[in-house]
Amino acid sequence: MRLEEIRREFHPVLPKALRGCKLRLQEDPKGNFQAKDASVESAFPHTFHHPLLWVSTEGKEKIPPKKQTIRVGVVFSGGQAPGGHNVIAGIFDALQERFTDPTLIGFIGGPEGILENQTTLLTKEKVDLYRNQGGFDLLGSGRTKIEGKKAIEKAYQNSKDLRLQGLVIIGGDDSNTNAAVLAEAFSQKDRRIAVIGVPKTIDGDLQSDYTPISFGFHTATSVYAEMVGNIAKDASSAKKYYHFIRLMGRSASHVTLECALKTQPNFALISEECLEKKKSVFSVVEELVSLIKKRANQGKYYGVILIPEGLLEFLTDMKQLISSINEALFQGVSSVESTLQESEKKLFSALPKSIQKQLLMDRDPHGNVQVSKISTEGLLVAMVEEKLRAFPEVANKFHPASHFFVYEGRASLPSNFDANYCYSLGKIAALLLEDGKTGYMASLLHLHKPVDEWQPLALPIAKMLHTERRKGKEKLVIAKALVCFSSEAYQTFAKKRGDWELSDAYLCPGPMQFFGPSAVVDAHPFSLRKPNLGL
Amino acid sequence: MRLEEIRREFHPVLPKALRGCKLRLQEDPKGNFQAKDASVESAFPHTFHHPLLWVSTEGKEKIPPKKQTIRVGVVFSGGQAPGGHNVIAGIFDALQERFTDPTLIGFIGGPEGILENQTTLLTKEKVDLYRNQGGFDLLGSGRTKIEGKKAIEKAYQNSKDLRLQGLVIIGGDDSNTNAAVLAEAFSQKDRRIAVIGVPKTIDGDLQSDYTPISFGFHTATSVYAEMVGNIAKDASSAKKYYHFIRLMGRSASHVTLECALKTQPNFALISEECLEKKKSVFSVVEELVSLIKKRANQGKYYGVILIPEGLLEFLTDMKQLISSINEALFQGVSSVESTLQESEKKLFSALPKSIQKQLLMDRDPHGNVQVSKISTEGLLVAMVEEKLRAFPEVANKFHPASHFFVYEGRASLPSNFDANYCYSLGKIAALLLEDGKTGYMASLLHLHKPVDEWQPLALPIAKMLHTERRKGKEKLVIAKALVCFSSEAYQTFAKKRGDWELSDAYLCPGPMQFFGPSAVVDAHPFSLRKPNLGL
Repeated sequence: MRLEEIRREFHPVLPKALRGCKLRLQEDPKGNFQAKDASVESAFPHTFHHPLLWVSTEGKEKIPPKKQTIRVGVVFSGGQAPGGHNVIAGIFDALQERFTDPTLIGFIGGPEGILENQTTLLTKEKVDLYRNQGGFDLLGSGRTKIEGKKAIEKAYQNSKDLRLQGLVIIGGDDSNTNAAVLAEAFSQKDRRIAVIGVPKTIDGDLQSDYTPISFGFHTATSVYAEMVGNIAKDASSAKKYYHFIRLMGRSASHVTLECALKTQPNFALISEECLEKKKSVFSVVEELVSLIKKRANQGKYYGVILIPEGLLEFLTDMKQLISSINEALFQGVSSVESTLQESEKKLFSALPKSIQKQLLMDRDPHGNVQVSKISTEGLLVAMVEEKLRAFPEVANKFHPASHFFVYEGRASLPSNFDANYCYSLGKIAALLLEDGKTGYMASLLHLHKPVDEWQPLALPIAKMLHTERRKGKEKLVIAKALVCFSSEAYQTFAKKRGDWELSDAYLCPGPMQFFGPSAVVDAHPFSLRKPNLGL
Repeated sequence: MRLEEIRREFHPVLPKALRGCKLRLQEDPKGNFQAKDASVESAFPHTFHHPLLWVSTEGKEKIPPKKQTIRVGVVFSGGQAPGGHNVIAGIFDALQERFTDPTLIGFIGGPEGILENQTTLLTKEKVDLYRNQGGFDLLGSGRTKIEGKKAIEKAYQNSKDLRLQGLVIIGGDDSNTNAAVLAEAFSQKDRRIAVIGVPKTIDGDLQSDYTPISFGFHTATSVYAEMVGNIAKDASSAKKYYHFIRLMGRSASHVTLECALKTQPNFALISEECLEKKKSVFSVVEELVSLIKKRANQGKYYGVILIPEGLLEFLTDMKQLISSINEALFQGVSSVESTLQESEKKLFSALPKSIQKQLLMDRDPHGNVQVSKISTEGLLVAMVEEKLRAFPEVANKFHPASHFFVYEGRASLPSNFDANYCYSLGKIAALLLEDGKTGYMASLLHLHKPVDEWQPLALPIAKMLHTERRKGKEKLVIAKALVCFSSEAYQTFAKKRGDWELSDAYLCPGPMQFFGPSAVVDAHPFSLRKPNLGL
C-alpha cells in the first residue's frame, strides 16, 4: 500500500471540546474580543454585532436527536494549502452525525463555480478518497472574488436554487472578507443562507490573537524546511556553493522565519525588519557581501541564505523605484528611464539587465510592474557578484545557486497537525451552520498544546475588518498579519541568528513523519501565536 | 528530540549472511563472473585475476579470537549520496568487533586529503554523531582523481606514513576505477596496503548484474519523487501550470525513470530512448507540443513533464551542434556561427537567445561548451512556446514553470533501505580488508528481497573495466550503466506511460517514512536489477 492510501485511513484526533455528545455555542466567555474598526458597522448592519462564540461540551447530556435535513455548499478559494480536504471531511462527518438526511455540495473551480453553478455532490465515496490528502483536487480552486451587486445576487440565486442553508468558504484573508460580505448580503434576503469562513493560507498571514495560525502553514513550511535542510547539509559537505533560497510570503515573512528556526541558515532576511530598519537593496547586498567575506576569512566559501518572496516591496529604494516606474507607465511616458530621479537611476542601472527589462516590460492586468515575477534571489546574486569583484580572492570562490520553492509545498500530504486542525475546523463550521450562525470564521485556540486542549471558537468576521488602501481604492479587508517583533518565534530567531552566521549550525529536519515517536509525529509550527488573553 | 537525533539511534538491519559469528569469503560459487575486457589484464597484472568473492556465514562455529591491530583509511570521492556515513559506521563497527586495537582514519575533503595528508581520527564519538545521517560532512568530499605516477606515489607514501593496511574509497564509477588503479599500483610496493571501493552515486549509473544499484539512489529519488508528486498534486488542483522538471542524470536516465514510476507524470523523456530512436531537439519539442495540444482538446491546460539532466547530449542534432561549436572553438575561429552547417545554423537560430549566448561563451576548463550548465528545461519551454504561437488558443493558456532538483536530494537523511545497504557495504569492506583482499568493490545481490536475504559479495574491479574514448583519450573505465530497455522498470514504464498522457494518473508518494507500516518503511527502488544469474 502506498503512503497516500495509508494516510486515507488516518483518523484525525479531535480536541476534547469537540468530542462531547452535545456541543454548545457559548457567547464570548471572556468578553475580550473587540471590533478592529467600529466604522465597519454601517456596512455590516446585520452581522457586525455578532459576538465571538465558544464551543463548549456538555458531555453528560444525552445525545440530542438528529435533525432531519440540511443542505450545505463548500468551496476552495485561492491557492492550495495542505489540509483543505480534511475541512471538507470534517464538515461531511459532522453533518452525517447530526442530520438524518444531509447533503454536501462542492463548488467546482473556486468561487467561479458558485457564479457558474458548477457543482458536484460530495458522497461518502468521494470524501473518503480525499481524507488526509494534499491538494485541492477534489473540487479545484480559483481566485475569483464574488464582488459587486450583480455577482453577489448571482451567488445568492444559485445557492437558493440549490436549496442551500449554508455555504463554507475555505480561503485566505481576502476570501474570508468575501465570506463576510456574502454573509451580510445574504442576511438581507428572504432565504436564510449562512456563510462561514475557514482560515487557510500557507503564508501564515491570516492569524491573530484568536487564530494562532492558518491551516497549511505547518505542512508547507515542513516541506520547505526539509529542502532547505537538505541543501544546507549538501553545502556543508561540498563546501563550495552559496545557496540563495527564496520562500513563499509576498506580504509577510512567516514562512522564512519558520524555516529559519527549523534549519538555522547563515542568514535569513525578514521583510518586516527591512521595512522597520528602512533598508535599501544596496544595504541588503552590503550585508550579504559582509557575511560572505567574514565566512571567507574563516576559509568557508559556502552558505545558505533565505529570502522572503516579497522582500523587494519592503526595501525603501526598490519600492520607490517601482512606484516611479508605475507612475511613468500610467502617464504613458515613452522613455521611462528619463523620468527617474538621480537615486532611482543609480539603482536602476545597478540592477541586472534581465531585471531592468522585466521592470520596463512585464505588466500585470492593471498595467503595473509584476513585482511577484521578479527573481529576487537572482537579483541579489547578481548584485552580490558585482560587489564582490572588488575582492577577487573571494569572488573566485563564490559559486551561487538559486532556488525558489512554491509548488513543492502547497499541495503536500498534510502533516498530522494540519490533518487534525483542518478536520476540527470542518467540524466547527458544520456546528455553526447547524445553529444557523452566519458571518463567522471557524478557529481554534491553544494550538501549541496537545490536541486534547485545543479550544474551538468562532469569530465574527466583520469585527476583524478595517479600511485599507489597496490598488488606489479604500477597501474593507482583514489586515494581513505581519511578523511580530515581540513574538516568541521572532525573539528566538533574533537571539540565535548571530551564532548561525559563522558557525555552521545547520539543522536538517528531514522528511515529515506520520508515524513514530511523538516528538516528530505531534510536531507543530514554532510560529504559533500564544497570546495572553486569559483564555 | 529532532528527527536527525532520533535517526542516530536507528540500528541498521544486517542480512543473515553478515550476521553469523564467523564470516567466510568463498570464491565465485557459480563461476559466472567474467572479465568485461581481457585486454585489461596487461595493465592490472596483480589484481586482474582475482576471483569474485562471496560472503558466507558459518554460524555454528565459535567466534574466532580477535586479531590485534589494524589501521584503515576511508575517503569520500565525488558528489554527496545519502548513506555515505553508514558505510563508515559499518567499517568502524566491523573493525571494533574483529580487532582489539583498530584505528580508522578519515581523509578530509576527498582524495585531495590523501595527497595532502589531511586526516582525522574517527573515534566512536564522532562516528556515533553521523550514524544514519545524510551528507558527507563528517569528512567532506572532492572530485580530485589520484592519477599519474607522481600522485599515486604520494598517495602510497602518505598511506604508508599513516601505517595503513587498507584504504576504502567511497565513490562512483570513476572513483572505483581509481580504487582499482591504486590497488594495482600498491600491490607492487613493499608495504601491503589493500584498496577497496564502495559503489556510490545517486544517478544509479554504477550498476550491473552483480550490483543491483549504487547507494544513495533510493533516497535521492524518494526526495525528488516527493517534490514531483507534490507539484503534480498542485498542478491537478490549480489546473493552470505546465511543470517542466529536470532531474539528475547526466549520462543515464535512471533517476527520471524511477521518479516517473513513482509519480506517473504526463510525460517523461528518457535520454537512452532518444538516442536509440535518433530523436532531435525538434522532434522532442514536436512531441511535447502534440501532448499539450491533445490535453488542451480535453480542456486540460496543465501537466507534468520530467526531463533527464543530460538529455541534450543524447539528441542527434544538438550533439552535432555542440561538437561543431567545440571544434570551431578548438580551432580558434573568430565567428563560430559562420562555420556551422545549414542544419546546425537552423537549430542554433531556433534556440533561445540565452542558450545561444551560453553555447558561445561558457567554457569548461578544457575550453568546451558547458553542456551541464544549460537549462534544458528552459530551452524546451522556450521552444515549445515558440511552436505554440501557431495555436493561440492553446498558447494563451500555456503557463510553464521550470524546476531543477539537485541539491535537494543528494544529502538527505538516508532511507531505511540506504541506511541498511550502506552499513552492510561498510561491513563487507572491513571484512575484505581483514582478509587482506585488494582491488575489490563491495556489493550485495538480491536487494529487492527482504534484508535478511541480501547476498554480500565482492567484485574484482579490474574485471569490470573496459577501454573507452573520453575527452579524446583512450581510458580504462567502468562503463556507465544506461537504462536497459529490457529491465522491469523500463518495461513497466513503457507499458503504462501511454495512459498517463491524457488521464491524470499522478501519484503523490509523499515524504519518506522511517517508521510505520512496512510497506513504506521497507520501500526499495523500482529500478533494482534482478538478473537471472542463478545466484
